[in-house]
Amino acid sequence: MIQGFDPRNGEPVGEPVAETSDAGVDAIVAAAVAAFPAWAAFGRRAEALEAVADALDARAGELAAIADTETALGGERLTGEVARTTGQLRLFAAVLRDGGYTDAVVTPASRDQGVVPDLRRIDRPVGPVAVFAASNFPFAFSVAGGDTASALAAGCPVVVKAHEGHPVTSDVTAGIVAGALASSGAPAGTFGLVHGVQAGLRLLRHPSVAAAGFTGSTGGGLALAKIAAGRPVPIPFYGELGSVNPSVVLPGAAFSRPAAVATGYAGSLTLGTGQFCTNPGLLFVPEDAGLLSAIAEAVGASSGGPMLTGRIFANFQDAVEEAAEHPGVSELAAGRSGPGPWGATPRVFQVTLKEFAADIAVLSRERFGPAGLVITYPSVEDLLPVLGSLAGNLAGTVHLDTGSAEDVELARQVIAVLERVAGRVVCNGWPTGVAVVAAQHHGGPWPATTAPASTSVGTAAIRRWLVPVAYQDFPAELLPPGLRS
Amino acid sequence: MIQGFDPRNGEPVGEPVAETSDAGVDAIVAAAVAAFPAWAAFGRRAEALEAVADALDARAGELAAIADTETALGGERLTGEVARTTGQLRLFAAVLRDGGYTDAVVTPASRDQGVVPDLRRIDRPVGPVAVFAASNFPFAFSVAGGDTASALAAGCPVVVKAHEGHPVTSDVTAGIVAGALASSGAPAGTFGLVHGVQAGLRLLRHPSVAAAGFTGSTGGGLALAKIAAGRPVPIPFYGELGSVNPSVVLPGAAFSRPAAVATGYAGSLTLGTGQFCTNPGLLFVPEDAGLLSAIAEAVGASSGGPMLTGRIFANFQDAVEEAAEHPGVSELAAGRSGPGPWGATPRVFQVTLKEFAADIAVLSRERFGPAGLVITYPSVEDLLPVLGSLAGNLAGTVHLDTGSAEDVELARQVIAVLERVAGRVVCNGWPTGVAVVAAQHHGGPWPATTAPASTSVGTAAIRRWLVPVAYQDFPAELLPPGLRS
Repeated sequence: MIQGFDPRNGEPVGEPVAETSDAGVDAIVAAAVAAFPAWAAFGRRAEALEAVADALDARAGELAAIADTETALGGERLTGEVARTTGQLRLFAAVLRDGGYTDAVVTPASRDQGVVPDLRRIDRPVGPVAVFAASNFPFAFSVAGGDTASALAAGCPVVVKAHEGHPVTSDVTAGIVAGALASSGAPAGTFGLVHGVQAGLRLLRHPSVAAAGFTGSTGGGLALAKIAAGRPVPIPFYGELGSVNPSVVLPGAAFSRPAAVATGYAGSLTLGTGQFCTNPGLLFVPEDAGLLSAIAEAVGASSGGPMLTGRIFANFQDAVEEAAEHPGVSELAAGRSGPGPWGATPRVFQVTLKEFAADIAVLSRERFGPAGLVITYPSVEDLLPVLGSLAGNLAGTVHLDTGSAEDVELARQVIAVLERVAGRVVCNGWPTGVAVVAAQHHGGPWPATTAPASTSVGTAAIRRWLVPVAYQDFPAELLPPGLRS
Repeated sequence: MIQGFDPRNGEPVGEPVAETSDAGVDAIVAAAVAAFPAWAAFGRRAEALEAVADALDARAGELAAIADTETALGGERLTGEVARTTGQLRLFAAVLRDGGYTDAVVTPASRDQGVVPDLRRIDRPVGPVAVFAASNFPFAFSVAGGDTASALAAGCPVVVKAHEGHPVTSDVTAGIVAGALASSGAPAGTFGLVHGVQAGLRLLRHPSVAAAGFTGSTGGGLALAKIAAGRPVPIPFYGELGSVNPSVVLPGAAFSRPAAVATGYAGSLTLGTGQFCTNPGLLFVPEDAGLLSAIAEAVGASSGGPMLTGRIFANFQDAVEEAAEHPGVSELAAGRSGPGPWGATPRVFQVTLKEFAADIAVLSRERFGPAGLVITYPSVEDLLPVLGSLAGNLAGTVHLDTGSAEDVELARQVIAVLERVAGRVVCNGWPTGVAVVAAQHHGGPWPATTAPASTSVGTAAIRRWLVPVAYQDFPAELLPPGLRS
């Protein structure tokens, strides 16, 4: 049985939920397989996604309240997250209406260079998709989140593996999604939900599952990626894993606005009790700046909160301890502790660039939660090679004084490195906050994502669930509808 | 040392070529790494690709003559293949001039749904690329072939691992490519060549290699794919492997034009001595048609040729023997033997659909060379599930009488299956012949390709070597040139 807990007091909340049996997983996948042709050809997918969005919106207050008991993320954040989730569903409905996502290309027959046949290519849904939900976004990266919305939009049936951290929220959300799809005329089996680690593994190994999406920890994601790659028939595994999101403060910015930088940093670091994959885990600052004391002050004024689960809290404590005990690392500041048995305390440590570089593998590890490492650098020239040796990240930021020609030139150098080690580079801002828009790229070099060319946020996320097929010399009546023009 | 051989007599041709040492591989990759930023930013990549094309064209006769001594593919085919290769380079020059390949997207800042930052995304070159050349296309899928052309176009330095079957052709081609690039002002190290299996493995494992392309056998490709996935930092491996390319003849086509179907089949099967990954290895025909005797006649009139290498010939002989000795399989026809010690004989076998389905894993294996299996089916209804259980293929074909309503309806059913098991579906044609155009998709479900959403032929092949980066709230002066508008 899977039991949800209230992070504010560690007590069980809601009824325990049964783990899905092997036979249960197989039946749900079989239903998805049966639904695939009809859902792929379903002419009203946009309307169906909008119906799901409407149904979730209609129960937003209830959903947020349930999720708050299982995550303690708070009513305002969770209500906003439901809106983000339904906005995402409506965005993909718009993508479907636009139609360009199928990337249809026609090369007419010609006799230019030998005989060239008539060729027409179009992207088609890959098949039933497994989605592994995240802990830290019980709506936007969970049952009805971006992976589900984009895969359904692509024409793929979806089977979600619920996160253990919010089983009741998952069940209630799944009921709303399934109901709205059914009311919209979607074939039965278009959407399913399974519970439990074993069920998730069986799902990923199921021969009829064609691709998988995952948002979660680096360790968990890499283990699942290996399973996906080791299947008799390997499948694409789109894992969005951990990240430390290096942020670089240039001398001009450190000198001209230390308080703003420090406040922005502390806010981004502690947002959602630091439980974001875009958390600014590493902050690089000039060693001669007064910025450190401003950071100490801002972090000292910050508050922690209850973490999502006991396991996440224990991992956070271990990670913080590893940093605290590391030779060369010293504590710069701590905020106020969060309430409850899993209440995290914001902690920020400092280390010199030289000490950091000497043990970069350990010191650049993700510490999921409100913990940051501030690295003091003597010069940007010294910083660049260290920055360039970081593993892949979802985001990186640079803070500069845009009025300083020197900072602009240094920013150019830093950006040239950051764009190689991060999928998104932010100028004078912080990595948290991932806009759901066409130009977004929420991905990054390995291991930030297991498929670095893909994004899990924004309209391009639909591409993960599509494969091209080319049709050669077809009579019009046999072509897929999107290629007849 | 690597020695080329003349397939027409098995004798050594040309001087032996030294295998590249570990230090040699490392030096070539280091040069590629050093060249990367300058090549990625090089403003005249289109002109450089055209210079390579011009230089190859200027020596087309010589290149074809050298390759003929190592491959015995014949002067006409090889001269044509040089033209295909230079056409490919010029096509990617056109792709660069068009500029759309960078998939630049701008989402302006707004306050529609909360504060949305200014986001701009663009595709950037992934880094140095390793290309594993194929045996069967000494130009178009070798040193200066599609992988090299598309990766260079993307802005990635390329290191090619030459195929052992044509070492001198590889060296001469590489010299022309490197010379033309240097004359065009490309940075030194933009292009390199290594020889030998060990050098290839070291290249694929090199930490600075960012992606790899491969065209070759299923066994070799899957082994390399595993190495790429098992690296400390895994890299994308775009392998275009073997395929049996199921071809289905519907009753109307079998009845109305048996001779044309039989002649087309025999021609496609024996083209290039059957040494194409798009060879029609499996032909499904109605069991009651007179088509079998027409096929026997056409194949009987066909000729084999010398195969590319002794190893390929030995593998072909083994594969043919496996089919010949399989219970339920009988020989339908044989053509005339090719000359020389590695001269292949066209062989076509027949089997019932029932017998085929009973041992589909063995009987649907690729037999690289001019060997085909004709499967007689009682009805399309019986055929569909067997067709649907095939592993992935690069291409599939359907032959129908477009004037017969019955055939059109059956074709619809067959296509609905073929488009799931093949990346390209051909109507009333044969799978050999892969046009280099925008709408091409030369890829297919696993194991036809290790990355089924990608193509190795056509303009979309450039996408394999690109990764997106998003820029958030950037001042115009710090944006990449393609995003400033």
